[in-house]
Amino acid sequence: MTGERIYLYDTTLRDGAQTQDVDFSVADKIAIAQDLDRLGIDYIEGGWPGANPTDDRFFGSDAPTLARATFTAFGMTRRPGRSAANDPGLAGLFNARCSAVCMVGKTWDFHVDVALAIPREENLELIRDSVAAAKAAKGEALFDAEHFFDGYKRNPGYAASCVRAAYEAGARWVVLCDTNGGTLPHEIEEIVHAVVHEHGIPGDRLGIHCHNDTENAVANSLAAVRAGARMIQGTLNGLGERCGNANLVALIPTLMLKMGFRTGVRAEDLGLLTEVSRALDERLNRAPNRHAAYVGASAFAHKGGLHVSAVEKDPACYEHIAPETVGNRRQIVVSDQAGRSNILARLREMGLDIDPADARLPRLVDLVKQRDTAGYAYDTAEASFELLARRELGKVPAFFELKRFHVTDERRYNAKGELVVESEAVVRVKIGDQVRHEVADGNGPVHALDQAMRKALESTYPLIRGVKLVDYRVRILAATAGTAAMPRVLIRSRNGDGSEWSTLGVSTNIIEASTEALVDSYTFKLLRDGVAPRG
Amino acid sequence: MTGERIYLYDTTLRDGAQTQDVDFSVADKIAIAQDLDRLGIDYIEGGWPGANPTDDRFFGSDAPTLARATFTAFGMTRRPGRSAANDPGLAGLFNARCSAVCMVGKTWDFHVDVALAIPREENLELIRDSVAAAKAAKGEALFDAEHFFDGYKRNPGYAASCVRAAYEAGARWVVLCDTNGGTLPHEIEEIVHAVVHEHGIPGDRLGIHCHNDTENAVANSLAAVRAGARMIQGTLNGLGERCGNANLVALIPTLMLKMGFRTGVRAEDLGLLTEVSRALDERLNRAPNRHAAYVGASAFAHKGGLHVSAVEKDPACYEHIAPETVGNRRQIVVSDQAGRSNILARLREMGLDIDPADARLPRLVDLVKQRDTAGYAYDTAEASFELLARRELGKVPAFFELKRFHVTDERRYNAKGELVVESEAVVRVKIGDQVRHEVADGNGPVHALDQAMRKALESTYPLIRGVKLVDYRVRILAATAGTAAMPRVLIRSRNGDGSEWSTLGVSTNIIEASTEALVDSYTFKLLRDGVAPRG
Repeated sequence: MTGERIYLYDTTLRDGAQTQDVDFSVADKIAIAQDLDRLGIDYIEGGWPGANPTDDRFFGSDAPTLARATFTAFGMTRRPGRSAANDPGLAGLFNARCSAVCMVGKTWDFHVDVALAIPREENLELIRDSVAAAKAAKGEALFDAEHFFDGYKRNPGYAASCVRAAYEAGARWVVLCDTNGGTLPHEIEEIVHAVVHEHGIPGDRLGIHCHNDTENAVANSLAAVRAGARMIQGTLNGLGERCGNANLVALIPTLMLKMGFRTGVRAEDLGLLTEVSRALDERLNRAPNRHAAYVGASAFAHKGGLHVSAVEKDPACYEHIAPETVGNRRQIVVSDQAGRSNILARLREMGLDIDPADARLPRLVDLVKQRDTAGYAYDTAEASFELLARRELGKVPAFFELKRFHVTDERRYNAKGELVVESEAVVRVKIGDQVRHEVADGNGPVHALDQAMRKALESTYPLIRGVKLVDYRVRILAATAGTAAMPRVLIRSRNGDGSEWSTLGVSTNIIEASTEALVDSYTFKLLRDGVAPRG
Repeated sequence: MTGERIYLYDTTLRDGAQTQDVDFSVADKIAIAQDLDRLGIDYIEGGWPGANPTDDRFFGSDAPTLARATFTAFGMTRRPGRSAANDPGLAGLFNARCSAVCMVGKTWDFHVDVALAIPREENLELIRDSVAAAKAAKGEALFDAEHFFDGYKRNPGYAASCVRAAYEAGARWVVLCDTNGGTLPHEIEEIVHAVVHEHGIPGDRLGIHCHNDTENAVANSLAAVRAGARMIQGTLNGLGERCGNANLVALIPTLMLKMGFRTGVRAEDLGLLTEVSRALDERLNRAPNRHAAYVGASAFAHKGGLHVSAVEKDPACYEHIAPETVGNRRQIVVSDQAGRSNILARLREMGLDIDPADARLPRLVDLVKQRDTAGYAYDTAEASFELLARRELGKVPAFFELKRFHVTDERRYNAKGELVVESEAVVRVKIGDQVRHEVADGNGPVHALDQAMRKALESTYPLIRGVKLVDYRVRILAATAGTAAMPRVLIRSRNGDGSEWSTLGVSTNIIEASTEALVDSYTFKLLRDGVAPRG
């Protein structure tokens, strides 16, 4: 298949917008479209003009400026009982500022009978008319064959006649949709093969549109390609209703790096993939999926001790592609499972080149294991690990010390007679030989502590102002019989420049565990920025 | 393929434990193993005895009691230069309390040359000896063929001779591993086919072990099964290092409902799938993936309009399987009707038979929606839901009221000059027209509050003495732009009779959220036991 061209059709802005909790503004749509265009996606489906005010603007006054992609509007074939010229839905579609239109129509006889309730022959006319009118109006028409696979399994002749109608009416692409997402890869491959070889639609006019309801959307898309289809519809990060659509972010590198296809994505632009994927999550205010294929933060993480020494000898031993190809990077993880070679590799990553024979190394390995058993999950908190390691190697300056704290949380009646809850924290922080004694309020005890510590630290270390707490989690480590439950607190901090780090604390007292994680976070920031300790 | 048996091998507790952020305690492992056993998984791989103290206990004093599954230990084949009888690793494995062992060995010539650095023939002896010794010691041996597909692509003869060595030495299962996760479904199908038909290992002795690095782990496992393999290794929810392992939760229903295979999961137990999947997330303090195939909360969600009326006519129009089959349920996002029938069903479950025309019902539906939006995940806290519903229906007595509280956490030097942290809580609780003013210490603020509330309540309601807090979790609800982060506290309580219930609280203040969950827990206990409110 080497060198053959696969066309990529993104529907993040239409099918992806069906995801629960996803609601794109026009500004979001413009930014996402520009990212898709920059990456090299061939078709960008922007939405459904006429369906809502956002899409009306996006296909009107606020249409995006694209360098390469074909901006595409989605809609339905004409309604029964009207001509294409008199259908207001089609008119809206044809007036949209776009270069192609994609129209969905029925191909499952059951839906024609029950949902449309028209004779099956009339449905074929609907498809023919609409495709021909769209081609005339916009130059390029695509047909989305809804429920094609479910329809084909029950009535192959009728389903095939529907897609042939679209093909014969001039559709540039006939897109076979697995609308309910229940079809398996081997079924997709067989049916697409039949469409090409028995029903005479050439592969370079056929597209595939899959959903992830059996976790096979990517494999289903690849199966269709193997059977001849040359366009794939999907979304960024597999966004989409129910279980999502086929994930273009996973498909693109597989097609290009493993199957030898060309796409609109230039080889040198494949490195944008991680960035484009994460930018979408950022826009949706979601934590990116660490485990995402190719682009996840953990996609090239190595944990087991055995693996790590081998990876260092030759990355191809344990990595299916070079992470940089897709703009990602390797990550070495530390934990209980890790041996000495993990820890050495981590130390090297943080710029500490320790002699493997160094006597401090086994002590550090033992310490990590001990603390892991005590609940310090260092693989979740790389900054706390770095501090532990550097302290053990004698390389962390004494920036400050939190000597004492006193936190109160009170529910009481305020002057207006309302029941309110207030938190206040008092801290004594030693910086050099000065002790700062500060107090602050917060909307909870950890917030109050954070505020009080900032008051104590910021005059000496103004860089701390740039640090924000972006996540806080608590888990009780399962108490074994007879021991007290131990909360483990995990804090994620973000710097002004967008970099993030995680720190943790473990104590029977949740407030103490929180202070431990907070102290680590500030210390890490100061250490990382090379700040000199003050006195 | 109808009726043929597929064996399921779960490695959540070993390969799944390699996931970043995942760190199972022995108690976690026991609970997960019991869930897997209840579901009907054939093999449960518990870990690697000898690798860490947790796994030593789990294969020793704390080994789980399983009704059906084969409890399996993982380890390596013997080291070069030692006999199987003199290998301390193998000895540890054979002494483990388990009924089978699975040993990993090399099959990629490159790894034999570079990582093991021994003659290739010697590697075959390692495999033969180890498998034979394991079979003799434990009765059942499995061989995990590491990097099999990468090895086979480069040197099919050598890779095949490695797995044949294991097969001939008596391995019950030879498991072909796509260790780096880079192999595609069509390659897996071809290679497994060759192993069966050219290299003479029958499918009912072959297993498959896939990783999700190209988002194809499920499809790869299915491809191997289509080529003849009859065992699948995978994890719950696709847990696993990097991008995860093959997701058994997605595979089981596909195998049973769509491909006609039998597994160890009885048809009537398939309905446990959603519960088992979500219990793991709960244990990991992770939000379950709403979009997970089959079991995600959104997997059978329908947005308004067209779909909903069609779904109501005939669910098969828009659903690839009936959600109840896997213990999930349909969710109609915009329809009040669905909310109402869900809630009616839950009210019936708690013994409240409400007339569907009851005027209080739409109010309750609205209230649940509102609170759900505010972060009250009532799905995870059935006791708090029951209290909400009964309160709305006017059926919860006023047992007591927590009017005010005051909690302090202090790190200070004690009389011996040691730095200690102490928590103290003062509460004012109204019972009837009396106010109890009590104070107590605790090893953390929530413990102190709990102790103080018990002091206030137990003389009037001695039944509360039987209630223990067994779990406490906090998650920050994703802040939307401009809002403060909101901790959600989930408390699990256990009664003297072993029954358990969950309650929750949401507030910007973690202490207030905790009191809300505590108050619900005691109130639920009193309500459930039919205690009369006192004054």
